[in-house]
Amino acid sequence: MIAVHRLAIHTITTKQWDLPTAVRKYCAAGVTGVGVWRQWLEGRTLAESKSLLDDHGLAAVSLVRGGFFPGISESERQAALDDNRRALDEAAAIGAPQVVLVCGAKPELSLATNRRQIADGIAACIDHAAALGVKLAIEPLHPMYADCRSAINTLGQCNDLIDQLGDAHVGIAADVYHIWWDPQLEAEIRRAGKRIIGFHVCDWLTPTTDFLNDRGLMGEGCIDIKGIRAMVEGAGFNGPIEVEIFSNRHWSRDPDEFFQDILTAYQEHVEIMDRRS
Amino acid sequence: MIAVHRLAIHTITTKQWDLPTAVRKYCAAGVTGVGVWRQWLEGRTLAESKSLLDDHGLAAVSLVRGGFFPGISESERQAALDDNRRALDEAAAIGAPQVVLVCGAKPELSLATNRRQIADGIAACIDHAAALGVKLAIEPLHPMYADCRSAINTLGQCNDLIDQLGDAHVGIAADVYHIWWDPQLEAEIRRAGKRIIGFHVCDWLTPTTDFLNDRGLMGEGCIDIKGIRAMVEGAGFNGPIEVEIFSNRHWSRDPDEFFQDILTAYQEHVEIMDRRS
Repeated sequence: MIAVHRLAIHTITTKQWDLPTAVRKYCAAGVTGVGVWRQWLEGRTLAESKSLLDDHGLAAVSLVRGGFFPGISESERQAALDDNRRALDEAAAIGAPQVVLVCGAKPELSLATNRRQIADGIAACIDHAAALGVKLAIEPLHPMYADCRSAINTLGQCNDLIDQLGDAHVGIAADVYHIWWDPQLEAEIRRAGKRIIGFHVCDWLTPTTDFLNDRGLMGEGCIDIKGIRAMVEGAGFNGPIEVEIFSNRHWSRDPDEFFQDILTAYQEHVEIMDRRS
Repeated sequence: MIAVHRLAIHTITTKQWDLPTAVRKYCAAGVTGVGVWRQWLEGRTLAESKSLLDDHGLAAVSLVRGGFFPGISESERQAALDDNRRALDEAAAIGAPQVVLVCGAKPELSLATNRRQIADGIAACIDHAAALGVKLAIEPLHPMYADCRSAINTLGQCNDLIDQLGDAHVGIAADVYHIWWDPQLEAEIRRAGKRIIGFHVCDWLTPTTDFLNDRGLMGEGCIDIKGIRAMVEGAGFNGPIEVEIFSNRHWSRDPDEFFQDILTAYQEHVEIMDRRS
């Protein structure tokens, strides 16, 4: 069996598998962590999903995803807050220590307004997060998503936000896909330190042909994944490493073969030899 | 006639028109500046192109483009330097005060290597630029191009580079498409001051469906063009405003209608009333 120390997989990565299938396959391969996308919780109770994970020796390492705070109307913003509190409830119910926040953006609003509404939205969820013991993990998104998916686009912005909101209940989910290009990467990872509570891997393809669903498997692209891993671990991160790949190309393949390739790619392009258990 | 004070148009924007057609159309509409793409200089001597511009009362405001400094081999890098020196010669010959640099990137090289090769490449062209009195204008490119088009992705990097290279012969071409999302935008524009020697406009569409050729006409997207214009002018810029739109959608339209829409969009979404002549 391929060594997969600290490997966690997002359910969306193996999109063709429902939760029962995914947990069975992950377990059989020795994977111990799952990034649970909320759609994979549908169709059964949260307790049943939790049991599914437990029965296969799997831990939910993150619930994906909350966020999308900006709204044109007050009611839209309120609905987002309600949804984020539900996401925190779901995370607590399945034992996930964090909800990943894709913070949102509305092209109709100015960047400044989007960013203010995001800060206000996260702040409004902190009490609920604290009560549940679940963290809010801000995921900076690549600047190509600044118009409509997230106006939080750099680790620097995350650090500024957390300077303001405190780090007791708010952290950072750092995905190599979103941050690899950043000239301030090393400095902002150092500044973040233990604020980094999630680390996601995949790769950037040349050319990339789709804004959302053309990510590469680790090693297929140009990201220095091991280099960034060394930086976040140097800053204090030692949690699970989450594989999150959106790829029409890989999703159209035989899912077992793709899964096998994920395990191999993890070992070759993510694992650092002297840290392997 | 629509007022088009300070408007310049890149020849690639009106891609269906060759240089003789473009200068005739621009002139008839009262446009006085052209961003000349090098392909539009082919098929006649540089002196003939210069005469075409002169005869229509048009000034070349920029030659587009140089750059692409990184190379896998030494000979590839040398070829890039030779080509950049030729671009400077061409700019001088047609009276363009600057060559716009799309700095380049090779996905096979590390970001650090790409960035070092870019700095070295620009440095190696400075003497030639100085001798000709033509400036090298570094255009920071959106981070979605960091893999293969430019590893210079923020105004902050441009400022760092110019701190190192001096600003006598090197400046910045600021294109709203590449910089609008940057949380450091205002601070880095202020830091740049008169280093900004080019200002390019277009818009960011939601959704954007192509990484290269789906830019919007000003006003079609979410960029606060007037806000960014006010920032660069506050920092000291008072040069031509260059419309640079790559758009399969607009390129497939009737070119005269598209051109008319450019003039209208410029007046509505770029012009600041109290500055109009």
